[in-house]
Amino acid sequence: MTNVHQFQCDYIAGCHPNVLEALVRTNLVEVPGYGEDPFCQSAADKIRAACGKPEAAVYFFAGGTTTNLTVVAAALRPHQGVVSCDSGHVEAHETGAIEATGHKVLTLPAHEGKIDAGELDAYCAGYFENAEKVLLVQPGMVYVSFPTETGSIYTLAELEALRRVCDKWDLYFYLDGARLAYGLAASPDVTIGDIARLTDAFYIGGTKCGTLDCEALVINHPALKKDFPALMRRQGALLSKGRLAGVQFDAIMTDDLYFEIGRKAVSQAMRLRQAFIDAGCTMAGDSPTNQQFVCLTQAQCDFMARKYRFEDCGRSADGRRVVRFCTAWSTRDDVFEELVADVAKLKTVA
Amino acid sequence: MTNVHQFQCDYIAGCHPNVLEALVRTNLVEVPGYGEDPFCQSAADKIRAACGKPEAAVYFFAGGTTTNLTVVAAALRPHQGVVSCDSGHVEAHETGAIEATGHKVLTLPAHEGKIDAGELDAYCAGYFENAEKVLLVQPGMVYVSFPTETGSIYTLAELEALRRVCDKWDLYFYLDGARLAYGLAASPDVTIGDIARLTDAFYIGGTKCGTLDCEALVINHPALKKDFPALMRRQGALLSKGRLAGVQFDAIMTDDLYFEIGRKAVSQAMRLRQAFIDAGCTMAGDSPTNQQFVCLTQAQCDFMARKYRFEDCGRSADGRRVVRFCTAWSTRDDVFEELVADVAKLKTVA
Amino acid sequence: MTNVHQFQCDYIAGCHPNVLEALVRTNLVEVPGYGEDPFCQSAADKIRAACGKPEAAVYFFAGGTTTNLTVVAAALRPHQGVVSCDSGHVEAHETGAIEATGHKVLTLPAHEGKIDAGELDAYCAGYFENAEKVLLVQPGMVYVSFPTETGSIYTLAELEALRRVCDKWDLYFYLDGARLAYGLAASPDVTIGDIARLTDAFYIGGTKCGTLDCEALVINHPALKKDFPALMRRQGALLSKGRLAGVQFDAIMTDDLYFEIGRKAVSQAMRLRQAFIDAGCTMAGDSPTNQQFVCLTQAQCDFMARKYRFEDCGRSADGRRVVRFCTAWSTRDDVFEELVADVAKLKTVA
Amino acid sequence: MTNVHQFQCDYIAGCHPNVLEALVRTNLVEVPGYGEDPFCQSAADKIRAACGKPEAAVYFFAGGTTTNLTVVAAALRPHQGVVSCDSGHVEAHETGAIEATGHKVLTLPAHEGKIDAGELDAYCAGYFENAEKVLLVQPGMVYVSFPTETGSIYTLAELEALRRVCDKWDLYFYLDGARLAYGLAASPDVTIGDIARLTDAFYIGGTKCGTLDCEALVINHPALKKDFPALMRRQGALLSKGRLAGVQFDAIMTDDLYFEIGRKAVSQAMRLRQAFIDAGCTMAGDSPTNQQFVCLTQAQCDFMARKYRFEDCGRSADGRRVVRFCTAWSTRDDVFEELVADVAKLKTVA
Repeated sequence: MTNVHQFQCDYIAGCHPNVLEALVRTNLVEVPGYGEDPFCQSAADKIRAACGKPEAAVYFFAGGTTTNLTVVAAALRPHQGVVSCDSGHVEAHETGAIEATGHKVLTLPAHEGKIDAGELDAYCAGYFENAEKVLLVQPGMVYVSFPTETGSIYTLAELEALRRVCDKWDLYFYLDGARLAYGLAASPDVTIGDIARLTDAFYIGGTKCGTLDCEALVINHPALKKDFPALMRRQGALLSKGRLAGVQFDAIMTDDLYFEIGRKAVSQAMRLRQAFIDAGCTMAGDSPTNQQFVCLTQAQCDFMARKYRFEDCGRSADGRRVVRFCTAWSTRDDVFEELVADVAKLKTVA
Repeated sequence: MTNVHQFQCDYIAGCHPNVLEALVRTNLVEVPGYGEDPFCQSAADKIRAACGKPEAAVYFFAGGTTTNLTVVAAALRPHQGVVSCDSGHVEAHETGAIEATGHKVLTLPAHEGKIDAGELDAYCAGYFENAEKVLLVQPGMVYVSFPTETGSIYTLAELEALRRVCDKWDLYFYLDGARLAYGLAASPDVTIGDIARLTDAFYIGGTKCGTLDCEALVINHPALKKDFPALMRRQGALLSKGRLAGVQFDAIMTDDLYFEIGRKAVSQAMRLRQAFIDAGCTMAGDSPTNQQFVCLTQAQCDFMARKYRFEDCGRSADGRRVVRFCTAWSTRDDVFEELVADVAKLKTVA
Repeated sequence: MTNVHQFQCDYIAGCHPNVLEALVRTNLVEVPGYGEDPFCQSAADKIRAACGKPEAAVYFFAGGTTTNLTVVAAALRPHQGVVSCDSGHVEAHETGAIEATGHKVLTLPAHEGKIDAGELDAYCAGYFENAEKVLLVQPGMVYVSFPTETGSIYTLAELEALRRVCDKWDLYFYLDGARLAYGLAASPDVTIGDIARLTDAFYIGGTKCGTLDCEALVINHPALKKDFPALMRRQGALLSKGRLAGVQFDAIMTDDLYFEIGRKAVSQAMRLRQAFIDAGCTMAGDSPTNQQFVCLTQAQCDFMARKYRFEDCGRSADGRRVVRFCTAWSTRDDVFEELVADVAKLKTVA
Repeated sequence: MTNVHQFQCDYIAGCHPNVLEALVRTNLVEVPGYGEDPFCQSAADKIRAACGKPEAAVYFFAGGTTTNLTVVAAALRPHQGVVSCDSGHVEAHETGAIEATGHKVLTLPAHEGKIDAGELDAYCAGYFENAEKVLLVQPGMVYVSFPTETGSIYTLAELEALRRVCDKWDLYFYLDGARLAYGLAASPDVTIGDIARLTDAFYIGGTKCGTLDCEALVINHPALKKDFPALMRRQGALLSKGRLAGVQFDAIMTDDLYFEIGRKAVSQAMRLRQAFIDAGCTMAGDSPTNQQFVCLTQAQCDFMARKYRFEDCGRSADGRRVVRFCTAWSTRDDVFEELVADVAKLKTVA
């Protein structure tokens, strides 16, 4: 493992030094369990303040899939499903965790990883105006991620359009922010306040943005708040040492750190993207965030693989490999400069 | 919170200093996700060695309930249930997490927190020899904890008897070791090797025995091993930063630390128990482990509550409070001596 | 099978002649599927009239277990369970069908097959006033059957008391009327109107009271009505030929037939009971309905078994067999007189 | 409703006269419940004989959705899903009943309602050879219907190819025969023996082919047979008056009746099809079975709607209505001749 630098994903390292320092500093403080501790309370307060949502409920989870499935199970009646685009995480990469709660994922085509509000509206009309809808799963929630699986982000206008469709058909609007820090840093117009204002619930991803395994769920819709810790417990999602998440989110929501982590990684990603383009490579998709997908020849793959690990995402139409490089809070400056320099050499690799 | 010492449970502090040191030391090492990292592999190797089970599969979870529900869902066919005593954790304190996977908990009476092998055998006979068993849930697994909810422990003979009944009726035998370190330290005859030998699966509790939120599941039965990580993922239990658990169990399974933690806390618990008895108090139950249940008058409760937090467990037959004090890896020596000294004063409190 | 008369249960024959006549008469009438036919509408109207509930929703099912599980799944949030006495059908005889929907059955002790309202109130208080209720399943519904599994019936005062407890703690009150005709015939004070007035939902049993496999669910609570056919469909409970149930319930709810069936069978059961008593036998329980449980010596069992089939229900404290004889709509007068005469002979059988 | 003839589906009438006669004849015969009666045994024997499968297990259900969901729940491990084409009944028209059992439906594109064996093979390869398959639902069963939702049928070669792919990847092969009588009548080469030989389980549809609500499941795979009635009970699918289905299938499997019903309806459907073509209408799809889909102008729809009810299936590419006419066992000869004569008049309707 020694001399290979890992860019295949954004969860290869432990946690941001400030977060680690907080864990060390508070380690022997004695507090109650199950999230009833002052660290969780302080973290929740900082999150509510950042969102401009003093009434929001905040809960902490150990991962994204357990967060998603708990929200879906808590929100939907039995005959309802969650609408996702076909590349959405709940549809494509959670091993049937949503179905394990008894609910279907209803899919719409992905447009650069995103749901189109007009298509969502038509889909809902197709259900609610169908004379035989008793045979169909009722759409009850819309799931989006920000950024999406392919690194793209919704514009503010797109999120507002989805909100209007949700209001029209009485659907919950839920946003998966596993990489929220990177999405917000990349967006010209969407703030965390906008997301809190437009969604019924969303989560602030920690695992991929600077903490150890943890995520912070923010619930805005009153009906979803009721008995929520019991609903978490039922899914095995209520952590007895809630402090582990509380301490970390308390640290990362301090002094703008969460957002600063996003800005730095996105800035690096944009430099990396430009380096690939300058080297004559074709990007696969227009990701403005920390995940960059690029088409490489086999020779170029081999060249890069000598020093770097990156993710194989299949083949492009012309037969080249599509690969993913991720920057993250843990990307070292010196390693990154070396990477950019090596990318420049791809020009000369067949 | 400052001057109150917390004895209400055994998960009030972060993690053992050795564990914390390992987290700090490895924080920036870059490794793959989902438990495919060298820390998880090293921890698993040490666990297999401690168990004398080179073929065992080892997986890490963020908590006991998510471990229990994943094992039950993986092991049982749909019409099967898990047998527990009525005070068992899966029956009494998991908010329906087992039922959420579609399986019933079948209960037997608890005898000091334990299942009686003879009663289990009779129960299975009652099912398998019932002409109308099509209307009944089939016992498919036996669940025990070691120690139990009330701090008691099975003897080696009792575990062997349960194993024989499981073999007779073709049931899985599963052991919840949330407080395994304390149970092993208290037992005159049961070793971790015995537990590994006698059960189909069990977990080594970390959260209550020296780590942050994590548990190590050991699977011995070949049928249960198949596709297990996918089964975890489906329940939202597969951690993307598996390293968090791997690093911690690697540290705590080093140089006998896990077992030493158990021995020290049990030794303190025995001194605490004797102190209560010497002060004229009646113990509630004969726990030989780190949880001590004692009957106190209201005045005695008030006296202790000035300096200590402990858990209220209801009332004894004669109207006194039953309360729980726990020792743990995190119990400080100076605080403990102070506690013992204060307990001695109860003699003079009405 | 020829010369043995079957009294082991109340579903040994097809359907009441009036019901069969209606099936024959309407067989070739062409109607839409899924319960949207005039027979279902007419049957529902007659049921609403009998209940004095013009606003009630009425749906038809093919059996009691599928009715029970669909109601529970429709009514409860994920962390809620249904309270039943420990001899209740949902707890004891449905092979985990409730748990298959993800919900726990919470049990109270049975008192002659019934839940005590005071114990229910205490149980709810124990939950809602528990500081650690996040670890417990929340009671969300009360399940009773009328008559119960042991043939007993609630008084009007008992049902009213249960309703008050349900109102106090915001629980649904659901009544399983698999043998409702027999319960109503036996009750001195409870009418179908009382049951409709006091419960949120209940079902009128057809299968055991004169129809082929079908039951009629009556829903009073507005929240439960919403999208109910879709909820049935999801459980596989929506019959495409809804007419089969509609025609049958339309016939059996005509001219008081359903209630007359109950009265006749209960009248026979009371004669049978007296015959056993006159013969010196001990009854097992005080059932006033169509199921009679009696203790017989082995010789008496053998004597009866030459001509009759009856159900074995285990052993009484003094070692005799407890057996069940059921009367039903299908009990033939001549066979019944023969049975009573044979029971009288038990006096002389050791 | 009087003067409108119903062709919108094939479950508008009760049951075939022979079936009705059997129900009347056996109505008062007293038999045990839960399918343990001689009618069910006789029906099962006739089915086994027709299939050439003396070892097959046969069980009866009240509908197709409850059959499908019970088989899926019984067969799959929790992380597995069932592969269907996107127009398959389990995916498109069961209100999430499969997901309610905790399993995902994995979809392949429909080719005239059918799965392509090559695409299935590629899909399985894509899963089993995927390095990150832990994040994906494992294909565990293939679901097809015969005929399909659009009335098409698999050839023998196509079924054999699917069987080979199932063997290659260790999947169950399950066939939904809701309209099996019509499919077999239409097929030049597939017999019920072939279906029994090639599948692990399939059901013989009764509801749409001459009985009241019932279907007969045939299980060939030994692992699926184990404890199957208990698995049915858990889903609320075990009928207490099993005789209702037993009597009906016993009658319809006598003297080739089931197959004769199919032949007559298919023969009518082919005449109807030709009549539409002769009238200049365009058929929507090439159904050789009892469902015929045809494109009509609005004027033609209005013309037909004066005397007939048929199903609206949306619009064709050129804006005409696509409608469905079904023949069935209940189609009266005189009405059918009238229909054909009226279809001939469509030539003159704009």
